[in-house]
Amino acid sequence: MYTVADYLLDRLKELGIDDIFGVPGDYNLKFLDHITGREDLNWIGNANELNAAYMADGYARTKGISAFVTTFGVGELSAVNGLAGSYAENVPVIEIVGSPTTTVQNNNKLVHHTLGDGDFLRFEKMHEEVTAGIAHLTAQNALTEIDRVLTCALIKRRPVYINLPIDIAEIEATRPISPLDQASTKLTDVESVILDKVEKELYQAKNPVVIAGHEILSYHIEQQLEEFIQKFNLPITTLPLGKGAFNEEDAHYIGTYSGSPTEEPLKSRVDTADLVLLLGAKLTDSATSGFSFGFTDKQIISIGSTEVQFYGEQYEAIQLDRFVSALATLSCSRYTGEILPVKRISNLEIKNEKLTQKQFWKMVETFLIPGDTVVGEQGTSFFGLTNVALKRNMHFIGQPLWGSIGYTFPSVLGSQIANKDSRHLLFIGDGSLQLTIQELGTALREQLTPIVFVINNNGYTVEREIHGATEQYNDIPMWDYQNLPLVFGGNSQNTATYKATTEVELDEAMKAARKDTTRLQWIEVVMDQEDAPELLKKLAKNFAKQNS
Amino acid sequence: MYTVADYLLDRLKELGIDDIFGVPGDYNLKFLDHITGREDLNWIGNANELNAAYMADGYARTKGISAFVTTFGVGELSAVNGLAGSYAENVPVIEIVGSPTTTVQNNNKLVHHTLGDGDFLRFEKMHEEVTAGIAHLTAQNALTEIDRVLTCALIKRRPVYINLPIDIAEIEATRPISPLDQASTKLTDVESVILDKVEKELYQAKNPVVIAGHEILSYHIEQQLEEFIQKFNLPITTLPLGKGAFNEEDAHYIGTYSGSPTEEPLKSRVDTADLVLLLGAKLTDSATSGFSFGFTDKQIISIGSTEVQFYGEQYEAIQLDRFVSALATLSCSRYTGEILPVKRISNLEIKNEKLTQKQFWKMVETFLIPGDTVVGEQGTSFFGLTNVALKRNMHFIGQPLWGSIGYTFPSVLGSQIANKDSRHLLFIGDGSLQLTIQELGTALREQLTPIVFVINNNGYTVEREIHGATEQYNDIPMWDYQNLPLVFGGNSQNTATYKATTEVELDEAMKAARKDTTRLQWIEVVMDQEDAPELLKKLAKNFAKQNS
Repeated sequence: MYTVADYLLDRLKELGIDDIFGVPGDYNLKFLDHITGREDLNWIGNANELNAAYMADGYARTKGISAFVTTFGVGELSAVNGLAGSYAENVPVIEIVGSPTTTVQNNNKLVHHTLGDGDFLRFEKMHEEVTAGIAHLTAQNALTEIDRVLTCALIKRRPVYINLPIDIAEIEATRPISPLDQASTKLTDVESVILDKVEKELYQAKNPVVIAGHEILSYHIEQQLEEFIQKFNLPITTLPLGKGAFNEEDAHYIGTYSGSPTEEPLKSRVDTADLVLLLGAKLTDSATSGFSFGFTDKQIISIGSTEVQFYGEQYEAIQLDRFVSALATLSCSRYTGEILPVKRISNLEIKNEKLTQKQFWKMVETFLIPGDTVVGEQGTSFFGLTNVALKRNMHFIGQPLWGSIGYTFPSVLGSQIANKDSRHLLFIGDGSLQLTIQELGTALREQLTPIVFVINNNGYTVEREIHGATEQYNDIPMWDYQNLPLVFGGNSQNTATYKATTEVELDEAMKAARKDTTRLQWIEVVMDQEDAPELLKKLAKNFAKQNS
Repeated sequence: MYTVADYLLDRLKELGIDDIFGVPGDYNLKFLDHITGREDLNWIGNANELNAAYMADGYARTKGISAFVTTFGVGELSAVNGLAGSYAENVPVIEIVGSPTTTVQNNNKLVHHTLGDGDFLRFEKMHEEVTAGIAHLTAQNALTEIDRVLTCALIKRRPVYINLPIDIAEIEATRPISPLDQASTKLTDVESVILDKVEKELYQAKNPVVIAGHEILSYHIEQQLEEFIQKFNLPITTLPLGKGAFNEEDAHYIGTYSGSPTEEPLKSRVDTADLVLLLGAKLTDSATSGFSFGFTDKQIISIGSTEVQFYGEQYEAIQLDRFVSALATLSCSRYTGEILPVKRISNLEIKNEKLTQKQFWKMVETFLIPGDTVVGEQGTSFFGLTNVALKRNMHFIGQPLWGSIGYTFPSVLGSQIANKDSRHLLFIGDGSLQLTIQELGTALREQLTPIVFVINNNGYTVEREIHGATEQYNDIPMWDYQNLPLVFGGNSQNTATYKATTEVELDEAMKAARKDTTRLQWIEVVMDQEDAPELLKKLAKNFAKQNS
């Protein structure tokens, strides 16, 4: 019998989902049978639900969309921080929550995984704050509600939540007749008006600059953006919240802009532009070192999926993907000024000296190859990577707006499951790794092969920079980082481990890791607890001010 | 200068809190200075926020109340499942969320740890569903709001949430003048009426039985209950959700009642009672093997903090602590019938045979000593422990209503921090341990010494019993359980590890662990993946029915 569960899974396949994450629970077990019963879907069981949400987020950032399954109450609430991160950073993730039968719910039974008050709508209600759509499936609405929220996730690029009572999953359904609606490619009247205005302003600008943000990645419109930039010959920068949105090897790319700590001449070039055209970008505190950008509303045109602004004046938000596509069709007004070249590391000297943050990130830059996926944890890693020049066809994942520590470890695994052809690199600190370490078991079971740089600097260095440099609360228990893989299922067949405290040791580890592509590479990198990338030191000062 | 932060901490001290759990974040760092600056408070940093909430829950179950600190957005949402569990099972936990400054919030700034929409009230709003009170502190209301929600936690025995903008923590305050209000000991008129009715019914009953539930533990009124039972000479049983609410060595105790799987003659004794007096008890599915209790509304008087029922008729809820105290003052009508004795294990034969669940729980019963704290994970462990007869002065912790797997590992640590004089035992399965394993680092750093029985039965046996016995989704990655402590900071000074696959091996491990009281004891117990306690097998069948 073809059921609601089958319909839902057919729709997920239609969206390009091949792997589903999650944790079993008795309110979703029967639904999981429909997943494991299919040849064309993989079930990836996670160690816990927050990790499942993080892994699904990483998968969606690479593949475009993802899904994970939890159980009612305990499971969904464990995962909700992950879903909120997907909401904040515009990542379309579908959460399917297996819930008690309609009979149990309608009779307000005192079943497990509830608050014991017979109220089955509390958790769903909580999710309204962090999702773009909620569907509570019934025998009457199941198919239309599934289609409604999936379309919503597709168009808004944000997470949605499906409450699937375990009996509803099993009722008979008809197969989908037509594909899900995608956003129309035809501009609305408002969008046409806005497009005309942008065209006019570009034509008049003497030294414009484009700032690309994270929504370019979210809508996967890097290609459309590149067409626009090349046609108009515009200089382009990205915010740290959006790094990777533009090919950093392209001649139009002038570097990553992060407010006052940005190096010259990039800083002045951006700050003094007569037109700063933001595309899918948000000027958040972490993307601009505490709002320290040097331009004002009078210079800004900002085009985003939730906000459009012309020099401080607010307009109706637009559909970003069709808008950026339309930008590339405008009549051309090629910029003729100079475009700043990006500085790149070459001929790096390796000494037999203690590793420093400064040298580490230089060595990382020389380690990158085109096509890599680089994931940076929100700490010294993210801020270290911000000024590393990427290569072409690279994909960058970070979470600077939501900034939930521990996020990147499951995320890099999800991303690698989505694209096994890309070499995956993770940079994560010891403090962050502690939050989500159990997913190492999943990585090894799934035979994933990321290159993981574990920065052991004895605690929360990012917090030390902001406040309490030597306070006990910024310490963490010291683990045996190098041997961690061994207890989680690692062995010499599936894992290579290294420990580097000097430049030479790191160089050797990198050389070995570069060749060893069939095993997980686990590189412990030891650096001082007070050492941090310059950008982080400056940003931390601004954050400390913001908190007083 | 004496600040709002100091006031809050003085109030926590007044409630008996000596240790505060949590994870640092830049919106709470300065508040943490006030904790680490005090001689009379310990800061216990956790590996992640959900674990902090679980650890605080365990601490509160033992010490009466607890507090933990998270950061805004990411931290609080990671912890919310823990807080929901405290709500479901009536555990008073105070969450203090460090949030951005009032200026940042009032100006709707696009700061990190938000959804990037300038709305700072979303997460607070989500917490309304799972707490008994929310305080958002301002310069005007800080002290009165702190007092209001702490009083609420005390009286309702449920979690509360304090949103503490980081600037408000630092403003000047006056010291508390009078202690916080406790619940009055004087009965309300409604309570007096209900008390009279209970007295009358007890007087008329021929073969009454008392069922004690989890609220007895929550209000810490075990002593008052015992006085009442002894004065009236009543037979008493507990539900699994409430195990440990009555001294199981007392002659009035007749065993744990769990619906249809309950052994005879206990089952019939309870089912055929002419009066079933429930005290602080909830007849949930997991406490009654899927509502399979053999008595009906016509036999039930139920007295609880959220519900009072007389033979199906609903009354206003009462304040449970003063009501149970008042019960002991009633004029006496001593029950004169027989009271069933509890069966206890004696002279257990130890064979050199593969360990089975059946034998394992018998061996556990003989291992217990008066004063132990026993913690059972919601899986084979909890259901195995349900029918283990406890000794006097023992404390039992489980989470059968909320049933969030992984909860017990941080919880046993929190409980041991609250009461270092009690020997602590944890029983947890491999599947559950995977969710929260990183807190092992905290256990070792804090030099805790629980005896941890890790039941390695290759996956989610509790789920296998309900559905999908051999399905892939009930498998988990195989870790090296025995060596886990070594990578989390363990060594031969602070940890002893064992692996037991036979009765003899377990017996030897138990003998060694009994004597070795200064190190953490880590005992891997290997049993078959299809082996499960009888109670669980029966309950699982009823749960499978409930899900269809």
